Amino acid sequence: MPDPRLLETFPTPAEAGDRPFVIEHIAEEFTSLCPKTGHPDYGVVTVRFSPAPAGKGGTCVELKSLKMYLQSFRNEGIFYEAVTNSICNDLEAAMKPLWLEVRTEWRGRGGIRSVITAGVGERP
Amino acid sequence: MPDPRLLETFPTPAEAGDRPFVIEHIAEEFTSLCPKTGHPDYGVVTVRFSPAPAGKGGTCVELKSLKMYLQSFRNEGIFYEAVTNSICNDLEAAMKPLWLEVRTEWRGRGGIRSVITAGVGERP
Amino acid sequence: MPDPRLLETFPTPAEAGDRPFVIEHIAEEFTSLCPKTGHPDYGVVTVRFSPAPAGKGGTCVELKSLKMYLQSFRNEGIFYEAVTNSICNDLEAAMKPLWLEVRTEWRGRGGIRSVITAGVGERP
Amino acid sequence: MPDPRLLETFPTPAEAGDRPFVIEHIAEEFTSLCPKTGHPDYGVVTVRFSPAPAGKGGTCVELKSLKMYLQSFRNEGIFYEAVTNSICNDLEAAMKPLWLEVRTEWRGRGGIRSVITAGVGERP
Amino acid sequence: MPDPRLLETFPTPAEAGDRPFVIEHIAEEFTSLCPKTGHPDYGVVTVRFSPAPAGKGGTCVELKSLKMYLQSFRNEGIFYEAVTNSICNDLEAAMKPLWLEVRTEWRGRGGIRSVITAGVGERP
Amino acid sequence: MPDPRLLETFPTPAEAGDRPFVIEHIAEEFTSLCPKTGHPDYGVVTVRFSPAPAGKGGTCVELKSLKMYLQSFRNEGIFYEAVTNSICNDLEAAMKPLWLEVRTEWRGRGGIRSVITAGVGERP
Amino acid sequence: MPDPRLLETFPTPAEAGDRPFVIEHIAEEFTSLCPKTGHPDYGVVTVRFSPAPAGKGGTCVELKSLKMYLQSFRNEGIFYEAVTNSICNDLEAAMKPLWLEVRTEWRGRGGIRSVITAGVGERP
Amino acid sequence: MPDPRLLETFPTPAEAGDRPFVIEHIAEEFTSLCPKTGHPDYGVVTVRFSPAPAGKGGTCVELKSLKMYLQSFRNEGIFYEAVTNSICNDLEAAMKPLWLEVRTEWRGRGGIRSVITAGVGERP
Amino acid sequence: MPDPRLLETFPTPAEAGDRPFVIEHIAEEFTSLCPKTGHPDYGVVTVRFSPAPAGKGGTCVELKSLKMYLQSFRNEGIFYEAVTNSICNDLEAAMKPLWLEVRTEWRGRGGIRSVITAGVGERP
Amino acid sequence: MPDPRLLETFPTPAEAGDRPFVIEHIAEEFTSLCPKTGHPDYGVVTVRFSPAPAGKGGTCVELKSLKMYLQSFRNEGIFYEAVTNSICNDLEAAMKPLWLEVRTEWRGRGGIRSVITAGVGERP
Repeated sequence: MPDPRLLETFPTPAEAGDRPFVIEHIAEEFTSLCPKTGHPDYGVVTVRFSPAPAGKGGTCVELKSLKMYLQSFRNEGIFYEAVTNSICNDLEAAMKPLWLEVRTEWRGRGGIRSVITAGVGERP
Repeated sequence: MPDPRLLETFPTPAEAGDRPFVIEHIAEEFTSLCPKTGHPDYGVVTVRFSPAPAGKGGTCVELKSLKMYLQSFRNEGIFYEAVTNSICNDLEAAMKPLWLEVRTEWRGRGGIRSVITAGVGERP
Repeated sequence: MPDPRLLETFPTPAEAGDRPFVIEHIAEEFTSLCPKTGHPDYGVVTVRFSPAPAGKGGTCVELKSLKMYLQSFRNEGIFYEAVTNSICNDLEAAMKPLWLEVRTEWRGRGGIRSVITAGVGERP
Repeated sequence: MPDPRLLETFPTPAEAGDRPFVIEHIAEEFTSLCPKTGHPDYGVVTVRFSPAPAGKGGTCVELKSLKMYLQSFRNEGIFYEAVTNSICNDLEAAMKPLWLEVRTEWRGRGGIRSVITAGVGERP
Repeated sequence: MPDPRLLETFPTPAEAGDRPFVIEHIAEEFTSLCPKTGHPDYGVVTVRFSPAPAGKGGTCVELKSLKMYLQSFRNEGIFYEAVTNSICNDLEAAMKPLWLEVRTEWRGRGGIRSVITAGVGERP
Repeated sequence: MPDPRLLETFPTPAEAGDRPFVIEHIAEEFTSLCPKTGHPDYGVVTVRFSPAPAGKGGTCVELKSLKMYLQSFRNEGIFYEAVTNSICNDLEAAMKPLWLEVRTEWRGRGGIRSVITAGVGERP
Repeated sequence: MPDPRLLETFPTPAEAGDRPFVIEHIAEEFTSLCPKTGHPDYGVVTVRFSPAPAGKGGTCVELKSLKMYLQSFRNEGIFYEAVTNSICNDLEAAMKPLWLEVRTEWRGRGGIRSVITAGVGERP
Repeated sequence: MPDPRLLETFPTPAEAGDRPFVIEHIAEEFTSLCPKTGHPDYGVVTVRFSPAPAGKGGTCVELKSLKMYLQSFRNEGIFYEAVTNSICNDLEAAMKPLWLEVRTEWRGRGGIRSVITAGVGERP
Repeated sequence: MPDPRLLETFPTPAEAGDRPFVIEHIAEEFTSLCPKTGHPDYGVVTVRFSPAPAGKGGTCVELKSLKMYLQSFRNEGIFYEAVTNSICNDLEAAMKPLWLEVRTEWRGRGGIRSVITAGVGERP
Repeated sequence: MPDPRLLETFPTPAEAGDRPFVIEHIAEEFTSLCPKTGHPDYGVVTVRFSPAPAGKGGTCVELKSLKMYLQSFRNEGIFYEAVTNSICNDLEAAMKPLWLEVRTEWRGRGGIRSVITAGVGERP
């Protein structure tokens, strides 16, 4: 079951000072289940954000914890739109970034493939 | 015959709150007939939109119903421009989205391929 | 309904003399229906053959008639394997080529795509 | 000889109402002659425009007539720049679109390939 | 748990007569678990075979049952080599084909990706 | 009109001694006319051969003369199969190579594209 | 030695009227020498500009003269940055265009490849 | 150990005058170590900047010194974010450019690949 | 320093019976040092083999140990040819496979890239 | 001027024992001049060979000397066929390999590109 408590963070690295910078993680092997049919869905999840600066207590999501969190969807029956907005909500709560965008690209079923994009804050 | 009554919707997921987000469906196997020659046309139909928020009664088009609706063009003699604007009109009526864009890319005939793009509302 | 009588042929061109040569036609826009679900299948049909020589009454399939023949599958409910072997049988009967190969590559359903290859005679 | 009288138009489809939309035709097999050497030039011609609305007497170029018009350059000795601007002028005169862009991409001669872009009106 | 009883077959289509032909199914969305770490593995499974002829009681694997069978590996901890040889053994038992080849291509872990190929009978 | 007298040759270079070697010329901008409709056909012509050795009076086709010869098809109404075999015959007569292969790949009409291959001698 | 006197121009074609348009020439086979090591550098030079209108005495660079000018760098020891800015200066002096951009993309040495972009005027 | 003293610069070339221009260096073979596991990380480092003009004492990083500097990370245990911001800081200190952007694209570990982008000044 | 003792093996899986099968591991992130200049070399190492059957005590190289073994070349000054043949010798000694092939593809230096292939036994 | 004395060799590495192996060098930046027009030609030169074994005094061409040798063609007016056979002859004389193949792929002139392949010994 998707579990936001799996998400861990580390402080924004001091090297960046107050300068905002951009982090993008692309998870190419996401899978969950279709809540209607039980068949697996496959997709690519892209997370992009600017962490709050180190001086303001900013944090970044830890890579391995992000992987474990995404794996927790493996046997969950959940719609594309809900996956995308849930990941967005959970990461927003965990990091309080300057801005955040979550994009899911699905391999498609029945000849139609889908891309869902959600975000918080003003994206550049 | 193209039949807009095939389109079904579901409420915008509550996870998104009032935050607008973007849904894109890419149907790579569209076919209709040329009204002049009766020969089949083949194309890719891309639908992009932001649903109205859940709190304002917003809805999203249901994926399988979209597939059935697009299949209803299979034996219809209809021009590229009419296909594109009809799909746009029917989806707009069904969902009342914040904005909507329909793009059709045709495999071409006689060495010329075409792309038609129609939309309603202000697209980002 | 698939109709082999749509296939027309023309005599193997005299320029080739008795020298065998190879003709390949690739129809990238084939469609038929799944006999179980009624949903459309999409694929690429590749026909390769060496016509019998002109001096022995050899013939080649005429391109436009091949197109009309392939279009006659449009609303037919028929399995991949039957499509492939039927086209092979019908072309063999119409042309009596030195050898013939028919290959169908299907866009896939439910995450599995298929390729079927049938032929008569010894292929180089 | 390039002949603008070959261009035919049809009224902007009523389905679009007053909503502007975009039409793009990509002719991948254009050829003309170099006026200096007589050698053939090969290129891709892309035409993009928004037709004036149906209610204002707007028209769109008919696809087959566009093909015949482009074929009329086949044995004409004419420079890249003149091809591009001539097509732009002829289409503008025939359709009076909201805006129009003509782009020609040439396969190149002597290790240099060229792209020429001309247009009228404000392009989005 | 991988379950060969999920595999169903249908008789080799009569259209092929005694002529051997080739069927290839490419499942692009296979996933199982690493038996050491529990982390998911992702791969593409390609199955190629020639069914025994209809006149000799030949059968072909049914596409949907193949899909269900492959999905039964989803939560199984199993090595690459065992996945490949198990699928090969199960399909051989179910179909008794003229020949059979199973190829698995894995997305890789730690910078190394793997391809495993097993087969029975003489492959062309 | 296709004119084989445009083809010029030069002696096989002495550097090769009696060692056979392979020459391949790929003309990516071939065009002729469909003899039925008068519409232009576009294709790629690939010529491959091993010239007879210098010591045996072998010759190679001169590149610019090959270009002029291929351009002489520009306004000729001629079928794919005849183009391919005519080029094969004309080059064979002009060079008497050890072996020769001519392959034409056509951009297609009406959704079907074709590849024709003719040759003389034993190709490696 | 790079020689700007090799550059020739022709008047902006009258077909364009006062309408600005864009010309792009891509020379894919540029080579010069590294001034430090004497080893050859290889790159692609892209020149983009809008010529001044015909009515204001505007001119365009002639394609063959551009080729000869670029070839004059062949045995010149010169840095990437100097190549790019020199070409920009020489073309600006020869044409007085509305705007001009010169972009050089180098194949790289020691695992690092470079792209240099210089320009005059306001580029769209 | 990463050593900024390896970075050498040369004066902005006079050919550019006061005109700002853009330099991009793409190092496709960067490697460092993961500080947690000690396993190697591999990535592409892209550096883009506009040097201060020659007349204001502007400088550009020398290519070979950039290579040596990047190689000094080879056996350093360091996080993605720190690599990116350190390179940005060191180049900024060495060149005082008009603006600077450093982008690192990592090949990924455990199915997730990352892209980090940091910069100083207003990028076009 | 390259250390063959890092290589571990596991018994050929019993599922394969006596049937030979093929294993291919592709390590896309190999790096070593040039023994002349000390600069890093980067390449892709592909290992292909058929393990001896389980019943004859056959073994397969364990994936993580292969990774550690390949990493042991990281700071070794060694030529392309020696890398390739050393890996071949070490794997042959560790596994005694039916046949083995090692292929290294190097990113190149000074505009020349290299591919080295070594093997033992008869490869299919 | 092409100078075979630039070619240096080193002994076949002892690691390979008597086992033949394959070396391939791909020089992607070859240039010479057309002897007719003086215009530069650009191509890719691929050299493949099996060195004679170390125990029989076998040698391999040294990479940097190969680079210098290929650069010596830079300002030489020479035909494609002569370039290819000369390189083949010079390398054969320098190394006496088990077999050798030289392949040159030219970027083309006037719409025709060429590939020339020469070799000595029996190639696998």
